[in-house]
Amino acid sequence: MAKISKLLVANRGEIALRIMRTAREMGISTVAVYSEADRLSPHVKLADEAICLGPPPSNQSYLLGDKIIKTCLDLGVDAIHPGYGFLSENAEFAKKVTQAGLIFVGPSPESIEVMGSKLAAKQAVAKYDIPLVPGTEEAISDIAAAKVKAAEIGYPILIKASAGGGGKGMRIVESEEEFEEQMQRAVSEAQSAFGDGAVFIEKFITSPRHIEIQVLGDQQGNTVYLFERECSIQRRHQKVIEEAPSAVVSPEMRKAMGEAAVGVAKACNYYGAGTVEFIVDDQLNFYFLEMNTRLQVEHPVTEMITGKDLVREQILIAEGNPLPFAQEDLQINGHAVEIRVYAEDPKNNFLPDIGKLVTYRRPQGPGIRVDDGFEEGMDIPIYYDPMIAKLITHGSNREEAINRMIGAINAYRITGIQTTLDFCRFALQHEAFVSGQFDTKFVERYFTPEKLEHVFSEEEKELLAALAVEFFDKEEQKINPIKPMRAVPSTNWKNRLI
Amino acid sequence: MAKISKLLVANRGEIALRIMRTAREMGISTVAVYSEADRLSPHVKLADEAICLGPPPSNQSYLLGDKIIKTCLDLGVDAIHPGYGFLSENAEFAKKVTQAGLIFVGPSPESIEVMGSKLAAKQAVAKYDIPLVPGTEEAISDIAAAKVKAAEIGYPILIKASAGGGGKGMRIVESEEEFEEQMQRAVSEAQSAFGDGAVFIEKFITSPRHIEIQVLGDQQGNTVYLFERECSIQRRHQKVIEEAPSAVVSPEMRKAMGEAAVGVAKACNYYGAGTVEFIVDDQLNFYFLEMNTRLQVEHPVTEMITGKDLVREQILIAEGNPLPFAQEDLQINGHAVEIRVYAEDPKNNFLPDIGKLVTYRRPQGPGIRVDDGFEEGMDIPIYYDPMIAKLITHGSNREEAINRMIGAINAYRITGIQTTLDFCRFALQHEAFVSGQFDTKFVERYFTPEKLEHVFSEEEKELLAALAVEFFDKEEQKINPIKPMRAVPSTNWKNRLI
Repeated sequence: MAKISKLLVANRGEIALRIMRTAREMGISTVAVYSEADRLSPHVKLADEAICLGPPPSNQSYLLGDKIIKTCLDLGVDAIHPGYGFLSENAEFAKKVTQAGLIFVGPSPESIEVMGSKLAAKQAVAKYDIPLVPGTEEAISDIAAAKVKAAEIGYPILIKASAGGGGKGMRIVESEEEFEEQMQRAVSEAQSAFGDGAVFIEKFITSPRHIEIQVLGDQQGNTVYLFERECSIQRRHQKVIEEAPSAVVSPEMRKAMGEAAVGVAKACNYYGAGTVEFIVDDQLNFYFLEMNTRLQVEHPVTEMITGKDLVREQILIAEGNPLPFAQEDLQINGHAVEIRVYAEDPKNNFLPDIGKLVTYRRPQGPGIRVDDGFEEGMDIPIYYDPMIAKLITHGSNREEAINRMIGAINAYRITGIQTTLDFCRFALQHEAFVSGQFDTKFVERYFTPEKLEHVFSEEEKELLAALAVEFFDKEEQKINPIKPMRAVPSTNWKNRLI
Repeated sequence: MAKISKLLVANRGEIALRIMRTAREMGISTVAVYSEADRLSPHVKLADEAICLGPPPSNQSYLLGDKIIKTCLDLGVDAIHPGYGFLSENAEFAKKVTQAGLIFVGPSPESIEVMGSKLAAKQAVAKYDIPLVPGTEEAISDIAAAKVKAAEIGYPILIKASAGGGGKGMRIVESEEEFEEQMQRAVSEAQSAFGDGAVFIEKFITSPRHIEIQVLGDQQGNTVYLFERECSIQRRHQKVIEEAPSAVVSPEMRKAMGEAAVGVAKACNYYGAGTVEFIVDDQLNFYFLEMNTRLQVEHPVTEMITGKDLVREQILIAEGNPLPFAQEDLQINGHAVEIRVYAEDPKNNFLPDIGKLVTYRRPQGPGIRVDDGFEEGMDIPIYYDPMIAKLITHGSNREEAINRMIGAINAYRITGIQTTLDFCRFALQHEAFVSGQFDTKFVERYFTPEKLEHVFSEEEKELLAALAVEFFDKEEQKINPIKPMRAVPSTNWKNRLI
């Protein structure tokens, strides 16, 4: 069993800070790496030691694996935590780290490699009875045979050209009546476009939800699941709001998904923290999509409902410790929601809005957690993902967690740049979100920039009118100090307007 | 069932903010009251409306019950939350609130009254089989009879003059051999000092711990306990560090204490949130001390381990709702610790150190909660309790919660005034605290101001030397820019010294 005493965090921003905080709590000293653009960042200040890797962009700094490994050897570091993004799912880097005699806080290079390839992942899980989206395993061009297969799969189905990509030659077939005609067209289109008429057919998921399972495995072969995260609220395949547990997952479904996720992990001899992603249809059937072999951005919601510190567990596993709990020791406490606060302008097609954080005050109070990497007065650099913060709330049930989140959004004070806070509040208050009846198309279906324009209620108009009276009275007093002011009750007008 | 739609919070500082946050989450609008000294306080800014009650001190502002009630009637407020301190345990005020047709968010005036009198409380719980510190119920002066009673109670015992007070005429008797002589002296001393030789005798608790139970009761008569809080770390009867659960309470003891606490609540027909305080001896026998008929300062540790928002429950109960959970629905998740950060100088006999919060940066991250009522740049007013903040951490076990607290203390940045942060870190790192083997005399037994003086380790001396080299090199370069600087690795010296 190795004891980690000095950890290099090969990342930046909120996740670097979050990892270092846990390391410090465990008595592990920390080394930060940074690009020239990040030299004043909080993660550089928090670390015990800090090394500049080079200028932005990332391929000249955060992605320089060899330089990071050399730094570890120079400074007597014994382990590297890659965070998410950057080098976190690079099997080659993980292998080099191990070969240099260092500990990689993550799974084995082999696990990363298998799960990094869709095909290899599918083959690996084959013997574990993991549900996959039903479809043909091999390309097909015979229409009669395809029709039989399509009936087996069940409509609607999706026909896609074997040689295609990016949606080219894809067709949705709603019923058997349409099948032959659509199939003929698809085959001939594929033939003329790619010179190959072979197509795959698979089940088309009409109203997909994205639900993922957090797993933890040790190097002794014990694996547990830490329940699900609902990540269906997305914008251009980027998650925007995550929650745990999901509003639609029953205890039976949770157990079935959890056991399937453990099966996926076992299929690639997984150890460390990982996430198994599933696509869920409107009948709540779930199908394995892929496994992310690292810590996820949205891991805090799982921490809030399980009380487990996932980074701590990652480090303990990397040291070779067996998992300190079994499946039956884990339970869900309450409900947690996370929003990602981006420096983007939702009224202007979510264009990144970089600049200075002129005002930056975090919300606080019971059940509120902010994971961020900025301080007031700092610039949001242009080179990286424009995420300012993750705002997480916990409550004893879903309604409480959502209401707490809305209160926290209202209390967040950010000026100098546009953010997605208003957009998130819109989503959290939308009836589809409140009812739990939504899918991955939520944003494109319900959001338009006008939704963020404020329509004043009668009460607000009254308040504004009273505010104007107060203002003009004061102005008038400057000219005619003898005239008494009208009585206006002492009221925090601004707060009542929020 | 009444629905509260506008709540006045008759308090200031962190607790006013904490109550208003929950009210907002519940869709209830809020009214703040304030003294002239607090006009720029965050609780005034957060509220929807704010009314100035008058100048400090409190008897000219926060204690003006009638003025507060009149304000409610003027503004259409339907309920008052008193917080802790001020008017929170004033039965007369609670009665007037009710008589004015308003809801008092707290127990009935009768419950407050009974538990406000030690004698009435003792009588009320008599039929509920609640353990009390064993002793004579009436004063005694006959030495032979007293000796029989003392043997029944068990040594050591405490003899105290019936007419005495403030420790006068108090004697500890360690064994039966000493009894007659000590009793004679006590009686004759009492006779000469007070003109009355009658004394009480009761069990002397050698190593007392202070452990309290949180209860919640509704107006339908359902009562549950939300487990214990360990509050033994005190300084001059003021709690300094609180935690939940206690390191010494077993599941059986927890159940017995919880059921005793529910008995105490039932004995006074209690509804709302209340705390039953027990004194616990070194054999872990527990005895009822008193009941606090309000929210406690240390309530957050209970919220962290149960996931329940106690203010929300208080409001729901005050509206007349039945408790939404039963005893078997409640469970302990992990461990929570709270420290009280005071504007006091621990190196100078804990004298209040008021002044300006020149720098004020809160710690943040998973499992960290700060309940405070200040912002950077604000003055700590002289008129009130010098508590700046409550810092609360939660972890999956005691060790994790304590380590997280130490990390949070290190990350807290307060300049401009002296605080008790260093003192709290000393206590948390002391072996008696770490082992859980401590009592209410912890501070007087272990703490001296020198304990906060820093002794540099060899590594620290080395770092300081290197820092000096770097500094002098830079100075020399100013004079002689041709001479190269010595290579010093890029290191965050300051952080390594913390």
